[in-house]
Parts: sequence; C-alpha cells; structure tokens
Amino acid sequence: MNEMDQARRDLVIANRILAREDVVDAYGHVSMRHPQDPGRYLLSWSRSPELVEGGDIVEFTLDGKKVSADNRPPYLERFIHGAIYEARPDVQAVIHSHAEDLLPYGITHAKLPPVIHSGSVIGNDVPIWDIAEKFGRATNLLVVNMEQGRDLAKTLAGNRLALMRGHGFAAAGRSLMDAVRIGVYAPKNARVHMAALRLGVPLPLHPGEIEARTDLFNPNTAEMWRAWEYWARRANVADLLGEPPKAAKGTSRN
Amino acid sequence: MNEMDQARRDLVIANRILAREDVVDAYGHVSMRHPQDPGRYLLSWSRSPELVEGGDIVEFTLDGKKVSADNRPPYLERFIHGAIYEARPDVQAVIHSHAEDLLPYGITHAKLPPVIHSGSVIGNDVPIWDIAEKFGRATNLLVVNMEQGRDLAKTLAGNRLALMRGHGFAAAGRSLMDAVRIGVYAPKNARVHMAALRLGVPLPLHPGEIEARTDLFNPNTAEMWRAWEYWARRANVADLLGEPPKAAKGTSRN
Amino acid sequence: MNEMDQARRDLVIANRILAREDVVDAYGHVSMRHPQDPGRYLLSWSRSPELVEGGDIVEFTLDGKKVSADNRPPYLERFIHGAIYEARPDVQAVIHSHAEDLLPYGITHAKLPPVIHSGSVIGNDVPIWDIAEKFGRATNLLVVNMEQGRDLAKTLAGNRLALMRGHGFAAAGRSLMDAVRIGVYAPKNARVHMAALRLGVPLPLHPGEIEARTDLFNPNTAEMWRAWEYWARRANVADLLGEPPKAAKGTSRN
Amino acid sequence: MNEMDQARRDLVIANRILAREDVVDAYGHVSMRHPQDPGRYLLSWSRSPELVEGGDIVEFTLDGKKVSADNRPPYLERFIHGAIYEARPDVQAVIHSHAEDLLPYGITHAKLPPVIHSGSVIGNDVPIWDIAEKFGRATNLLVVNMEQGRDLAKTLAGNRLALMRGHGFAAAGRSLMDAVRIGVYAPKNARVHMAALRLGVPLPLHPGEIEARTDLFNPNTAEMWRAWEYWARRANVADLLGEPPKAAKGTSRN
Repeated sequence: MNEMDQARRDLVIANRILAREDVVDAYGHVSMRHPQDPGRYLLSWSRSPELVEGGDIVEFTLDGKKVSADNRPPYLERFIHGAIYEARPDVQAVIHSHAEDLLPYGITHAKLPPVIHSGSVIGNDVPIWDIAEKFGRATNLLVVNMEQGRDLAKTLAGNRLALMRGHGFAAAGRSLMDAVRIGVYAPKNARVHMAALRLGVPLPLHPGEIEARTDLFNPNTAEMWRAWEYWARRANVADLLGEPPKAAKGTSRN
Repeated sequence: MNEMDQARRDLVIANRILAREDVVDAYGHVSMRHPQDPGRYLLSWSRSPELVEGGDIVEFTLDGKKVSADNRPPYLERFIHGAIYEARPDVQAVIHSHAEDLLPYGITHAKLPPVIHSGSVIGNDVPIWDIAEKFGRATNLLVVNMEQGRDLAKTLAGNRLALMRGHGFAAAGRSLMDAVRIGVYAPKNARVHMAALRLGVPLPLHPGEIEARTDLFNPNTAEMWRAWEYWARRANVADLLGEPPKAAKGTSRN
Repeated sequence: MNEMDQARRDLVIANRILAREDVVDAYGHVSMRHPQDPGRYLLSWSRSPELVEGGDIVEFTLDGKKVSADNRPPYLERFIHGAIYEARPDVQAVIHSHAEDLLPYGITHAKLPPVIHSGSVIGNDVPIWDIAEKFGRATNLLVVNMEQGRDLAKTLAGNRLALMRGHGFAAAGRSLMDAVRIGVYAPKNARVHMAALRLGVPLPLHPGEIEARTDLFNPNTAEMWRAWEYWARRANVADLLGEPPKAAKGTSRN
Repeated sequence: MNEMDQARRDLVIANRILAREDVVDAYGHVSMRHPQDPGRYLLSWSRSPELVEGGDIVEFTLDGKKVSADNRPPYLERFIHGAIYEARPDVQAVIHSHAEDLLPYGITHAKLPPVIHSGSVIGNDVPIWDIAEKFGRATNLLVVNMEQGRDLAKTLAGNRLALMRGHGFAAAGRSLMDAVRIGVYAPKNARVHMAALRLGVPLPLHPGEIEARTDLFNPNTAEMWRAWEYWARRANVADLLGEPPKAAKGTSRN
C-alpha cells in the first residue's frame, strides 16, 4: 500500500473513531496534512464522519480550494483546517468538533486545565476564540472563510486546543493519532474537572508532568497502538488497521 | 412517489429519529400539516414512535377529529398539534415530548437561553406553560381538549418552543426537518447550559446570531441533509430516505 | 393460556423490562401476588432478572417459605415481598431495587417529591427506612427475615415507594404493570428533581394532580399498553406479549 | 481443567468484565497471584483488556520480570501489581484502572466514604497516593519501576483501594471476583456520593456495616455467582464460565 493510500485509510479510521467516541456526530470533521505536499490537506467532502470511506477523501490547498475537479460539496468550515496548517508547520492533523463536554467552558470563559494524565494532551493553556470579537455579533458562528480561519489560528497560537465560543473546538495534532487522542481525552478531562469542582479545588497537572507526557508521545509504541487498535475495533474498522508497529507486536499469541 | 406518500414516509422517518435520539419513548409524538390541506394534519394513531410505519399515519382535522372512519385509538394529547396549526399558519410540523433534559426548566421557571450554535433552533425566548394557571390544580396534566391546546398555543405565541410545567414541551417547526432539529438540539442546549452554570454565568448567543442561523435554514443544503441522513441511519430507516437534494449529492463517490 | 401461565409470563416480562431499563442488574427482584391465593406470591429463584424464564418462577408463602419442594436457592431478601403483601392487601406486585438515581435521597434524608407527571407514580410521600434504627449499626444492610421485612413494611405504610438507607428501594404496585411504572419512572423523577435543584426550587406536582393521575391508571387503556409493549420490545420479549386489550387495538394497521 | 487453566480462564473473564463495565478501556489491567507460586503473578501482555484471551496471559515474578522467554511487550505499569503482592500476602488479585468516576476524588483530596451497601467493598478508608510527593513534579505519572510501585503499596497499606492523583486507582482483592467487585462498585459508590452532595451531607455506612458485609464475602454463594454470571454474559464470555458452585445451582430449571 503506497503512502497516499495509507493516509486515506488512516483518515477513514480517524473519522470512524471520532464518530464512535461521540467526538463528532453529523457535524465535525478531521483532516490530515498531505503526506507529500505540506501545502495541501486531505479531508472528506460534506459527509457525516461515520459514513466516510476512502473514496470520500478530497485534496484541498491550504486556502480551501479543491485540487482536482470534483462536484461534491465540501464542508463549509474547511477553512479551520487550512488556516491552522498555514500557521503551524508542526501540525499534521486537525479536528473540528462540537463535543458536548467542552462547550460549557467556551460559554463561561472558565479555564480548562489538564487534571488527568490522559488529559495532558490538551496542553498547558486552552485559549477561547470568540468569533464576535472580530466579526461582530451577527454571524452564524461558522468559520466560512480564510479570514475567520486565520483569526481562529491566531488565537490557537502555539497551543494544541482552542475552544470556540458557543460552537465547539479545534484541535491540532503532531500526527493523526495525536489529534485523535486530543479529541477523545479532552472531553474526558473536562468531565473530570467539572465533577471535581463539586468536591473542591481541582489540582491541575504540574507543568513538568505535562511536558514529560508530551515528550512521551511516539506512535510506534505498544501503548499508542493499543489505543488505536481498541478504538478502531469499537468503530468496526479493525479490518482497515495495517500492520502494528514492531514494538507492539506479539509473536507467540495463540 | 406522490406527495402524500412522501409526507407519510418522512413522518415515519421523523418518528424513528426522535425515538432513537431519546426525544420520545413510548410517549411523545410528532405530526406534520397535511401537504395539500392546511386544515388537516398527519399523526400516527396511539403507537410508540419507534414502531410507527406508513400505515399508522392518520389524518385529523385541526380540532382533532379523524377525517376517515378508523377504529384505532388516537393519542389523547393530539390537541397540542391541532391548536398550534390553528394559531400558527407558518408552522408545518409539531413535536410533543417529555425529554428529560428540558423538564428541570419547566419546574423551576428558570430561563433557558440558546447558548450553542445548534441550540439557536429554540429561538430567543422559551415560554413556560403551566396548565394549573387556567385549568386548576387537579388536572392529570395532559392536554386533552382544544381549549387546553389553545391555551398552550397562546403561551407558545410566535415562538419555536414552549415548555409545559411538570410534563414536557411542544416544538413548532417551519418544516418537519426543522421540528426534528428543535427536538434534538433543545435538550443538548439545555445540558450545556446546565453544565455551564457550574462554571459561571453562561453567555447566551447574541440575538443577531440567532437570527443569522434561523435565516440559514434550508432543507435543500448539503448541511441539512447530512444530519437527516445521519439520524435516519442511526434509527435504521436509511432505506426510507429518498433522493438527496441536488446540493447534497456527490457524483464521484466510489 | 390459563391464569397461572399468564401470571408467570407477565412476571418474566417484568423481570426483563426492569433489567433492560437499568432498574435492576444482577441484584434486585420483582414479585407478584399469587393470582388465586392472596397468601402466596410468585418470585424467581436466585437468578439475575435479565435471565429469568417461566420455569424459574417459584411460589412462596408470605413468610418466605417455598410452597413446593425445590432445591434452587431463593433470594436472600425475599422477605421484603412477603412482608409488604402481608401488610397491604391492596398491593399486587413488589419491586426491590438498587437503582442508582434514588440512592442519594436515602443517604441524605432529602425529600423526593413527584415533580413530573410520570413521576406521580411515587405518590405524595416517599418515606425512608433505615435498618440501623431498629436492628443496629452492624447489619449487612440486607432484609433477611420477616422481622426486618415487617419493619420496612411499617415504614412504607400506605405509600407506594420507600427508600432504604444506603441500599435501595421497595415499590408497591396495584398491579404488576403499575409496579413496573414506579420502577421506571421513580428514577427519572429523581434525576429531573436533582437537576432542577441546580436551577432553583423545584415545584412539586399539586396533590390534586397526583390524585387525578393515580385515578387514571387502568391497564386496559391504549396508553398503558403502549408503554408495556414498548418496554417489552426493548427488552427483547415482545414475543411473550399476549393480545393487547381491546381499547389498544388497531384493526386497520398495514 | 487444571488449576492453571482455570486461573487463566478466570483472568480472561475478569478482563472482559472490566472492559464491558467501563472500568478499563484500552488502558488499565487486572492480574491475579499465581495459584501455585505466591512469588509470581499472571497478567496479560500489553493488550486492551477487552481483547485478552487465554494465550495472552504471561507469568511475572513479583519484581515484574517475565518468567519465560516471551518477546511480547508487557504493560509499562505492571509494577503496581507486583509491589502490592509483595507487600500484601492476603491479596490475590489487583486492578489498575483510570475509571472516570473516581478521578475527581484523587485531584481534590476529597474523602470518598462507602455510602451504599455494594460500595462497602472500598473499605473504611481510601488513601490517595500522589506520585509527585516522592518522585517530583516532572514524572509522566506512570508507575514504571518497583520503587514507585512500592511507594504506592505503602500508601495503600492494609486498605482495599488507593486513588492515584491525576491518574486512576489500584484495587486489592482477596480473590479475583473480590477485586472485580471493587472495580465495578467503587465507581457506582462515587457517583452516588457525588450526587448526594447536591442534596445534603451524605451519611456513610457505619463501620460495623462495612465489617459485616466484608465478612459476608464468599465466592461460593448463589449471590456472588449471580453477579459473576451476569457480568460474564454482558461481556459475551458466558461460554467461558465453568460450573457454578453447588450453592448457586438450580436443578429443576427448564
């Protein structure tokens, strides 16, 4: 399987995982930077993530134009993806989601700190972007052009997650698997933080702990593969999984 | 497929979606105005929405009488539907539901503002109707005649959603798909609002944002179809879906 | 099908419904008074409710002894059932459950009022029984003899639901279907009440409303059958459902 | 079936139950002490618990070394298990989990008392271990060597459950079934406790009640088997269940 086919396959897996784990529903989307051309990204046309298949993946330039002629309607908010890739050469995958557990933070401007080890994926700081600040109080809240996408990317800055007021979030991963981890664990971290508020003042992770965990990330370990395989099975796309990385393989299993 | 068959088919889909998304259970119902006669509406006989099929759809006059001889028992509370169609020529579909997440608002008279973009469907104001105000403190809380239905419709006024104290809600859509969106997103908006109260003072959508989103609604876009298709698949009635609108179609999918 | 076979069949349906609706899990049980001998009751031997079949139903005298020789172990807490039947000739079915949503009320001695129309089934007053009051602070909390069962029945008095501190609840129905309704709707009522506490002071149903709704109960209406059929289908025992009551039947369904 | 085969089979059942009941997901693990050599324990290699089969079970010495040559990667945190077996000869099974409902307690240092009868499994006192206290504020929070494992075991002391700040918990059972009960009921107890805080001051179980219930535990009763069988069925491993204990058997079932 060549690099492009693998990329499309992994993007399909990511779509299905995020749908299964309630990170996206009919809305929300996940993209990855083109593996061979950093000036492009891969994203489904306007389909529900749980229905996305390999043939649905379309190539876009960073400003949101289709690379090839294709009459299928694109996501209105694809500019979120391109603007982040443009501003952040380190980012290889982007998720936009309306996941319920993060929405309360965006509408109260309450700080969401990482409080559990898997939640370290959200990073030290989670900024909140309010579309009304620059674009006024009469938008439909959607990010529908590059100007809006760039403004969001500016608020995201060097972070891994930005909340969008009254709307959702954008997550920026160093790889597709990394982005999916943000998508799944950010809501869990939020639920735990919110529940802890009932008990007292939640102790956030120490900065050194967040750093140690971020440095830890390596898609080729048994630990990372374990989650990817687990999620793919739950999403009924285990058959799409390729060969596990060498470090995650068991040879004497019966 | 003629217009009436399409109407019945779409009403079946709506019944199944609302059941699958926990908006209704054994109780609660959804109707649509007769596509050819605004003085009539279509509604199932007294069945659980998740069991409703095309042959279960019955025609009623606005005052709740069956148009044809039919010995199947009707819903006791069908007057909710007729009274709203009578008062609101702009309304094409009505849902009555006991969805759990909205009930707390009806019994505390707390205001429920739209706080997330999909929640804009509930509109600027969500009035609360208390049956006891006009009909006393010894009813069984059900809306069982036109007088009660009309009183509820009066409280609903020009809004899209009215809560019914200790009972549920009535939603009024410009189309069947629009009503289903209110049914699904009003509870999500309520959950987010309630969670946000733990964090601070939730910022509601700006009136201009609600207006921009309401104007946006067009059942023939890729975005609207995407949700309808997604929900229908989850409800196992994808086979009933007709042809997608032109704007939502992909021709090069493989 | 004779009266005893029908009773066993309905009791199987009730077991399965309560398991499916998370009212019981491996623990918790439901009984009905013997249809021909008010001095006996029917209850499964010590099985998880979701596994109960017709042949698992055993006859007990009110003091908890098996009527026939049978070496299958009975539920340790069957005395809850017999003691309530003994004290309350009006009661035809009893549920004992550890449903999670009611447990917080039992350990804080907070009052649980009916706040939603379906919650009217819990009645005006829900007393709390604390086993420690009479039997000391070193029991295993289980009701394992008639003395304990009778003490619980005394606290239940003429009500429909009693909470058991740190343990669960006992519900007393006028019929099996009535008991199942208490089992399903009491937790929903508790969830709504608890959520409403975040918003303000929840308005309980008016006494006249509770009375009107209690008088309304009639197992032979379309409305009652609709829920019974719905729950049975969800629990995968629709095939056990007998003929619907005449008032719930549709003859022109296709 | 010999003792070792039974042990492996039961450990597979425990893995599947904990996965099905959301105690573990891709992460978290359960072990049992070797039935013939108290200086060893049985634990899967680095697989998601819901995928574990008999052939995945590996033998480790208490210091976390594989007994036989085996190139499959072990869990990084296996030292939690060995260190607890080393310190606690009474412990026969250990669970490590990130279950969501317990996490809020670990990050607020709020006390979690047993408040419901099934929650008595957590014991009188649930200590909280903070890895930063001894190992500084720049670890990745994982227990990756015996020194860390022993420090955790020291905090656990003679208790049945220890929370790990920002990470999860370790549970120590007198048997595999006992450990599984802690894993399942500790989160339920936490949910009930947390909900009760909204209503008032939750009344904990009395020490004599905890003691009476702890003494009660006997894997060979109908009551214990009932839960084990129920959970195994939900986890789709009923076919692995061996013969029920004599006290749990029904001979006249049809």
